[in-house]
Amino acid sequence: MANKPNIPKGTRDFGPVEMAKRNYIFDTIKSVYALYGFQQIETPAMETLHTLMGKYGEEGDQLLFKVLNSGDYLKKISDDELAERNTLKLQTKLCEKGLRYDLTVPFARYVVMHRDELQLPFKRYQIQPVWRADRPQKGRYREFYQCDADVVGSDSLLNEVELMEIVDTVFTKFGVRVQIKINNRKILTGIAEVMGEKDKIVDITVAIDKLDKIGLDNVNEELRNDGIPEEAIEKLQPIIKLEGTNDEKLDVISKVLNESAIGLKGVEETRFILNELKKVGLNNEIQLDLTLARGLNYYTGAIFEVKALDTPMGSITGGGRYDNLTGIFGMPGLSGVGISFGADRIYDVLNALDLYPKETITGTQLLFINFGEKETEYCLPVVNQARKAGIRTEMFPDSCKMKKQMNYANAKNIPFVALAGENEINAGKFTLKDMTTGEQCLISAEELINRLKS
Amino acid sequence: MANKPNIPKGTRDFGPVEMAKRNYIFDTIKSVYALYGFQQIETPAMETLHTLMGKYGEEGDQLLFKVLNSGDYLKKISDDELAERNTLKLQTKLCEKGLRYDLTVPFARYVVMHRDELQLPFKRYQIQPVWRADRPQKGRYREFYQCDADVVGSDSLLNEVELMEIVDTVFTKFGVRVQIKINNRKILTGIAEVMGEKDKIVDITVAIDKLDKIGLDNVNEELRNDGIPEEAIEKLQPIIKLEGTNDEKLDVISKVLNESAIGLKGVEETRFILNELKKVGLNNEIQLDLTLARGLNYYTGAIFEVKALDTPMGSITGGGRYDNLTGIFGMPGLSGVGISFGADRIYDVLNALDLYPKETITGTQLLFINFGEKETEYCLPVVNQARKAGIRTEMFPDSCKMKKQMNYANAKNIPFVALAGENEINAGKFTLKDMTTGEQCLISAEELINRLKS
Repeated sequence: MANKPNIPKGTRDFGPVEMAKRNYIFDTIKSVYALYGFQQIETPAMETLHTLMGKYGEEGDQLLFKVLNSGDYLKKISDDELAERNTLKLQTKLCEKGLRYDLTVPFARYVVMHRDELQLPFKRYQIQPVWRADRPQKGRYREFYQCDADVVGSDSLLNEVELMEIVDTVFTKFGVRVQIKINNRKILTGIAEVMGEKDKIVDITVAIDKLDKIGLDNVNEELRNDGIPEEAIEKLQPIIKLEGTNDEKLDVISKVLNESAIGLKGVEETRFILNELKKVGLNNEIQLDLTLARGLNYYTGAIFEVKALDTPMGSITGGGRYDNLTGIFGMPGLSGVGISFGADRIYDVLNALDLYPKETITGTQLLFINFGEKETEYCLPVVNQARKAGIRTEMFPDSCKMKKQMNYANAKNIPFVALAGENEINAGKFTLKDMTTGEQCLISAEELINRLKS
Repeated sequence: MANKPNIPKGTRDFGPVEMAKRNYIFDTIKSVYALYGFQQIETPAMETLHTLMGKYGEEGDQLLFKVLNSGDYLKKISDDELAERNTLKLQTKLCEKGLRYDLTVPFARYVVMHRDELQLPFKRYQIQPVWRADRPQKGRYREFYQCDADVVGSDSLLNEVELMEIVDTVFTKFGVRVQIKINNRKILTGIAEVMGEKDKIVDITVAIDKLDKIGLDNVNEELRNDGIPEEAIEKLQPIIKLEGTNDEKLDVISKVLNESAIGLKGVEETRFILNELKKVGLNNEIQLDLTLARGLNYYTGAIFEVKALDTPMGSITGGGRYDNLTGIFGMPGLSGVGISFGADRIYDVLNALDLYPKETITGTQLLFINFGEKETEYCLPVVNQARKAGIRTEMFPDSCKMKKQMNYANAKNIPFVALAGENEINAGKFTLKDMTTGEQCLISAEELINRLKS
């Protein structure tokens, strides 16, 4: 019977301290989303495979966790089909449901299913776990949370502006200095056009997206390998090496893209967004980065990415505009723009920079030591008064050794301990010990509560 | 491509209003748990089938959602085994993981896995969805949240007292009048003993647990059908019909159980708990109900159940003490006591009684109408000031028809709308419309913000 329990690989338990930190992250993001009028929704963990399959490419389909049908799951499968052992074909007969792989496809499904109830623009946020049967490795899990906000049903660039304000506000609240990078898919399309390689836009952007990692020479080499002619690569060089302020870059690029209508549209959009943000006055720098490409096939307008400045970590937030979120479910023409905070990486950044406010990870504020039945009776009314005053309070339930109880207070990082033995009871008072400084004082119940009440 | 999307049966989407209400419920429960020193943990949605199977009886095993192994899931299955089509046998070869069925078994698994890090007593709460492949029906879902709090590693009855205080505090905060019922598994054992039918304790308690639903005559009939002799049933009558105050009931039952050591222990425990609660002074009535049995095989001491008084609804909260939570995972002797709030039913109760505080379901507080580019430029700085003051504010992103924008405000229940056309701009002011009363006034940005700031 006694099997040593464990959890599926790539999954995690979150203990009390981790949870307090995660809640701080989620609560901060939630409060900022709400400040901008975003409303929370939740969708089921399981979606039908109809909804999920074919939305994430062939690899994504493989990485979906599929849920075995209940009852006689072999019912629809003939003996011949079974004997064939074609796992790809069989899986959709064994399973009708899968675990959600991201929050975007369920959101698109939600919008289409609830189209008649929704008032557009619909500003929703969603914070839920997703599951991917990826090979687990450092920082990559099979279950992790996504924190997405999207506006659908509005083409206005004010939405892009607001999302950048949200990013800036959230990281300002966290105390993390970040660099926000922005680009526009239309500019990338324009670049491919003026290079005369419109069809190769995917190859081009995949290559230049790697500039940071592999350097310019290797990017050019990759372009050559993709069959891009030398003169086209030559045309790309001033763009890829472009430096200066955002305005300077926009001026140069608008000249380069002079012949491309879509490219100029991208420049104009970017100029509007950056201009509005200048008026707002962000705390963090926003930089136009023409090599930023992110999930290109999906986005159709602005693209954003956020990196922490003071600790090495990949992208910690990203997003962009897409023009056809719900088309896959038969509802075309709905434009949207969204961002997604990478909670797990933000968690690591706040840990690395030691930025968790102390009060967010303080659980219990006050522990009453249990010296026995009589002493407990003396303490309990004050325990209740403290709780009524909003102080998170515990009475140690068992009258075990003092040392064990003090260890408990230390392990839980409880900042104050109240003791009442014979002396205190006779004096009608309590000894209050500050666990941080070690200081003790003899005070009345009222004083004790007033001192701890926030 | 255009398939009409839907969601798996028995699952639900939660839209913005439902989410706001659910968050109000969860946040209230969380804050009270924290006030009593409980700390939150989370466990993965998937557990190994080793962890889950055999913990919920044969029926429970059937109701577990099992997750198909990734890759070649037929690898470990021979052609002969496949041809046999034994779904029960095959499922554990096709699947290594399942979705969690409740929060108790994952918690037990957590305690055993993290035993070296935990400081006992461990007071944890956990609010997460669970999944059961039950036949969906009104009020029964295949995905639903549980909100559990447990203390493990302490035998003290002060824990039971605190849990009842938590129940009382939570429902007081909700404004729901409830009746808390309490019983003790030891009393039930004692009753079976004095009836001379110790072995039949399960049958006896299953029968008397139905008293409310089927009435005394049918309970007795069921006992007869279970093979309980007439004289034993006779002995049960005074107990099952027992009325009066808790103290009166305890006096009678302690005489009846005079010969049963375990029964008397149960009486003593119950007396202590009720006595302490009398000193605390609950807002809601707590009643000793000897017919309360709840999941008998699991509990070993106190048992609780809560019902709403002002609307018909089954049990909305329940719990009790168990003595061997972690024994199944090879860590015997750890006693615990816990409660579980039924979030879905509480949601229905608060809806039926119309008890959601208005402010909890108000998202955006202030909407600025978009009359065009110039007007928007005039509004945006004030939009930002309002947000800085903590007012949840939206600028309508598109300059579409006024009627559409007002519909948006109404659909989202936004209580205030700010308008700035030519007149307002010339006057350097805003028209603020109270959407509840319809009243309008012309005020400055500063006045507007001060008026809405909480």
